[in-house]
Amino acid sequence: MDCALLEELQAVLPGRVSTSSSDLDRYSTDEGPVVSPASPEAVVRARSVADVQNLLRWATRHTVPVVSRGAGSGLSGGAHATPGSVILSLEDMNRIVAVNPDDETAVVEPGVINADLNQAVAEHGLMYAPDPASHRWSTIGGNVATNAGGLRCAKYGVTRDSVLALEVVLADGTLVSTGHAPFKGVAGYDLTSLMTGSEGTLGVIVGITVRLRYLPRSVHTLAAFFGDFPKAAAGVLAIGRARVQPAILELLDGRTLEALDRAHGSNLRRRGGSLLLTQTDGYGAATEAEMITAALTEAGAVVSEENSAEAEHLVELRRDSRGASAEDLYRVGEDVAVPKSQLVSYVTALGAMAEKHGVQLKVIAHAGDGNLHPTFWVERSQGDLGRSRLEEALDESVRSALELGGTITGEHGVGQHKRRWLAWEQSEEVLDLQSGIKRLFDPLGILNPGKAIC
Amino acid sequence: MDCALLEELQAVLPGRVSTSSSDLDRYSTDEGPVVSPASPEAVVRARSVADVQNLLRWATRHTVPVVSRGAGSGLSGGAHATPGSVILSLEDMNRIVAVNPDDETAVVEPGVINADLNQAVAEHGLMYAPDPASHRWSTIGGNVATNAGGLRCAKYGVTRDSVLALEVVLADGTLVSTGHAPFKGVAGYDLTSLMTGSEGTLGVIVGITVRLRYLPRSVHTLAAFFGDFPKAAAGVLAIGRARVQPAILELLDGRTLEALDRAHGSNLRRRGGSLLLTQTDGYGAATEAEMITAALTEAGAVVSEENSAEAEHLVELRRDSRGASAEDLYRVGEDVAVPKSQLVSYVTALGAMAEKHGVQLKVIAHAGDGNLHPTFWVERSQGDLGRSRLEEALDESVRSALELGGTITGEHGVGQHKRRWLAWEQSEEVLDLQSGIKRLFDPLGILNPGKAIC
Repeated sequence: MDCALLEELQAVLPGRVSTSSSDLDRYSTDEGPVVSPASPEAVVRARSVADVQNLLRWATRHTVPVVSRGAGSGLSGGAHATPGSVILSLEDMNRIVAVNPDDETAVVEPGVINADLNQAVAEHGLMYAPDPASHRWSTIGGNVATNAGGLRCAKYGVTRDSVLALEVVLADGTLVSTGHAPFKGVAGYDLTSLMTGSEGTLGVIVGITVRLRYLPRSVHTLAAFFGDFPKAAAGVLAIGRARVQPAILELLDGRTLEALDRAHGSNLRRRGGSLLLTQTDGYGAATEAEMITAALTEAGAVVSEENSAEAEHLVELRRDSRGASAEDLYRVGEDVAVPKSQLVSYVTALGAMAEKHGVQLKVIAHAGDGNLHPTFWVERSQGDLGRSRLEEALDESVRSALELGGTITGEHGVGQHKRRWLAWEQSEEVLDLQSGIKRLFDPLGILNPGKAIC
Repeated sequence: MDCALLEELQAVLPGRVSTSSSDLDRYSTDEGPVVSPASPEAVVRARSVADVQNLLRWATRHTVPVVSRGAGSGLSGGAHATPGSVILSLEDMNRIVAVNPDDETAVVEPGVINADLNQAVAEHGLMYAPDPASHRWSTIGGNVATNAGGLRCAKYGVTRDSVLALEVVLADGTLVSTGHAPFKGVAGYDLTSLMTGSEGTLGVIVGITVRLRYLPRSVHTLAAFFGDFPKAAAGVLAIGRARVQPAILELLDGRTLEALDRAHGSNLRRRGGSLLLTQTDGYGAATEAEMITAALTEAGAVVSEENSAEAEHLVELRRDSRGASAEDLYRVGEDVAVPKSQLVSYVTALGAMAEKHGVQLKVIAHAGDGNLHPTFWVERSQGDLGRSRLEEALDESVRSALELGGTITGEHGVGQHKRRWLAWEQSEEVLDLQSGIKRLFDPLGILNPGKAIC
C-alpha cells in the first residue's frame, strides 16, 4: 500500500493503526482453513463508532478492502485477510452499554464476549441464549456476523432469534439503525436479519440490541450411551417422537469420546460407543428428563442422570471436543445440517465415506437441529495425495448432505472456505439476487470481498 | 385496461380470470382502512405455481401492477387494489403438500388456512405456533407476507421464527427457493427473512416450509382481574420479574370487557376493571401457573384458574375482541409495540390522549411482547371534524410509542395505512436501502406498488 495512503489512515485514526509484523501476522487469519494466504496492509483496532466511520470513509475514498473481525474465532475463514486489505478489529469496542431487566434486553458493542454478557445479566435472572462452543472467547458481534448457533439453540434458537436491532456502519461511513427495541416489529424490510449472518460483507455491526431469556432455575442433564453412532442418532428421533424439547441435545461419536478421554483423562469411551448428551431446563425439566430417559432406554441406551458438577464437566467437554489444531495433521471440520429424519442415514453414510476415501473421521452434532460437525483428517506425512483424498471426502460429505435435503453450513457461515459449495446448494438466480444486494450495500466492493457469497 | 391485454391474460390463464363486478368489488380491499379506494382490473385465482408464473410474465410484459392476497384478512391495507392493478388471489393454492413428523416440519401452499394446518399436524403431536387472531380464516401465505404475530408468540415467536424455507415467484416469473429444510442454515444472505413481512412487494410466495412445535400436553389458563388498566399492565412486568414465560399473555381493558359482555353475554367487566389473561403450557405449566398466580396476587389482582372449557372460551373471546366493523362509527385500530418496561406509561398516556382529542378508546394487547392494539373511534355523525380528531389521536398514539422506543407496527405490517408513519420511525438512509432492495427485486415496480415501504 502506498505510504501516503497509510499516513492518511494514521492521521484520521491516530493511535488505532498498527503495521507491526506481529499484528499483521496475528490478524491475518481466523480459525478457518486458509484457502489463499494473505497478509493485511494494516490493522485498525477501533474504539468507537466514529473510528469505524472514519476508517470506512477513508476506505471508500481509496477503494481499500476492509475485513472486520471480533475475536477471530470463526471457522470458515470469514475474517481471513485478503490481498491489500485492512483488518478492522472490533475487540476493543467491548462495552455492555445497557442491561434492561424489565425489557429483558441488553445493548452491547460488538466486541463484548458472549460469556461476559451472560455473566452480566445472570444477576437479573436472565441469559443470552446463543452459546457457540467458543462462547468464552467469541464476541457477540462475530456471533451476529455469522448468525452463530450453539448448544442451547435446540430450544432457544440461533443468534438471529435473539437479535432485535442493530447499529451498522455502511460502506461509505453512514451509520444506520435497523430493527426495533420491542420484541416485535414489522416496519419495512427485515434488514436486521439481512445483516445477521452476512459476515461483514454488507456493513460493519457496531451496536447490537439482544433479547434475553429467563435463566432456568432447574436443569437436568442426561448422559445416554449407545452401542454405536447410528443407534445414538436414532435416539435423537426417539426424543423427538416423545415430543419433548431439550435445551441441549448433543451427539458425540466413539472417536470423539476417545479423543476426549485422551485429552482429559475421562472414561467416556468405556461407557459406550456413542454419547447422546441431553439437557432439559425450566419448570418442566425433571418431568422432561424422565420422559427422555424412558424414550432413550427404550431405544437401547444406558441412561444416567448426571449430578450438576459432572453435567457441567460433560457439557464443557463437548464444547471443547473440536480439539486443538495438530501440526502433524491435515484436518478440516464441516458444518452441514440435514432434516432430522435423515440423521441416521447421514451418519451411516459418513462412516462409509471415510472408509472409501481412506481418511480418518470423528463426528459431533448439535443433533436437535440436525447440524453435524464431521471432522476429517489425514496424516500430514501423506502429502498431496492424502490432502486430495481429504478434499474428496469433504466434497462427498457436503454433496451427500445436500442430497438428503440439507445445507452446506448450519451455523459457521460460508466465509472463504465454503464458497466452493455454495452453488451446489443455491440456484444461479438466488446467487444473483445476493450479488445484487451486495452491490446495493457496497457498490465499491470494499467490505470483506471474496467471502460469504459467490 | 386495454381489451387486448385482458384477452391475452385470459388466454395465458384460461378459467382463472374474473372481471365480474362482484369479484372486482369483493377483492378490492382487505380488512384495513381504505386510504385511496380503487377497483382492480381483474382478479386471477391461481391454482398452481405455473399460474402465478404466467401471470407475472404477462404483468412484466405489460408493466401491470399485481396485488397478491390470501384471505384478505390483513389489517393495514396491504392487499388493497391500486389503480390499474390485477389482484392475484392465492386462496385456491391450499394444499398441505407434506407433513414430516420426524423432521417436525410441514410444506404448504400459500392458501392453506392457519387453523387447517394446525388441525392436520395435531395428530402427530405437533402444532404450527403462530396464531394471529384471524387463525381460523387467514392463510399461511398471508401470515408470512405480513410476518404475522398472534397470541402464542409470547413464548413461540412470530411467523418468521417458524419459517424455514420459501418458494417465491419473482416479478419476471422466475421461481426461486430460499432458506433451508433443516432447522438451521446460514448459506448466503437471509432471503427468507427478507421475504417474510415484505407484503408481496418483492415476490409472490408460492410455497412455505414451516417448523412445527410440540403440542403441549398440559395447559393452564389464568384470568387475573385488576382494578384498572395501568395496574394490569404493571402485572405484565410482575410476571416478567418472576422470570416465568407464559405461552399467552393478553391484556384487555375495561372498555373491551364491556364490549365483549355486550356481544357475548359474558360478565367480565363485573369481575374487574381490566383482565390479564395468561396461559402456560408444557411440562412446567402447573408450576408456572402457581408462580404467576403468586406474582399477580401480590400485584393486586384477583386471580382464578379457569377450567379448560371456560379457558378456551376466554381465549376465543380475546381473539374476537377486535369486534365487527360498525357502520355508524369511524374506527381505526392500531398496532404499535413498546419495550415492556414502557407498558404502564404507554397505556396511561393512551387514556389521556383519547380524552384530549375527544375520541373513544379501547385497548387490547399482546402484552408479553409489548404489542398493543388500541382502537380509537368517533361516531360517524361527528363528520369530518370527528374524523380529523380521530386522525390526530392516531398520530399522537404512534408518536408517543416511538418516543418510548417503540415501533409503528408490531405485527400487522405497514400496508397502505401505516406508510404515513414509516419515516417517523426509520431514517432516510434506511428507507433508501429498502427502496434499493425493492428496485433490485422488482425493477418495473409491478409488485404491490405503494405498500409496505416509502
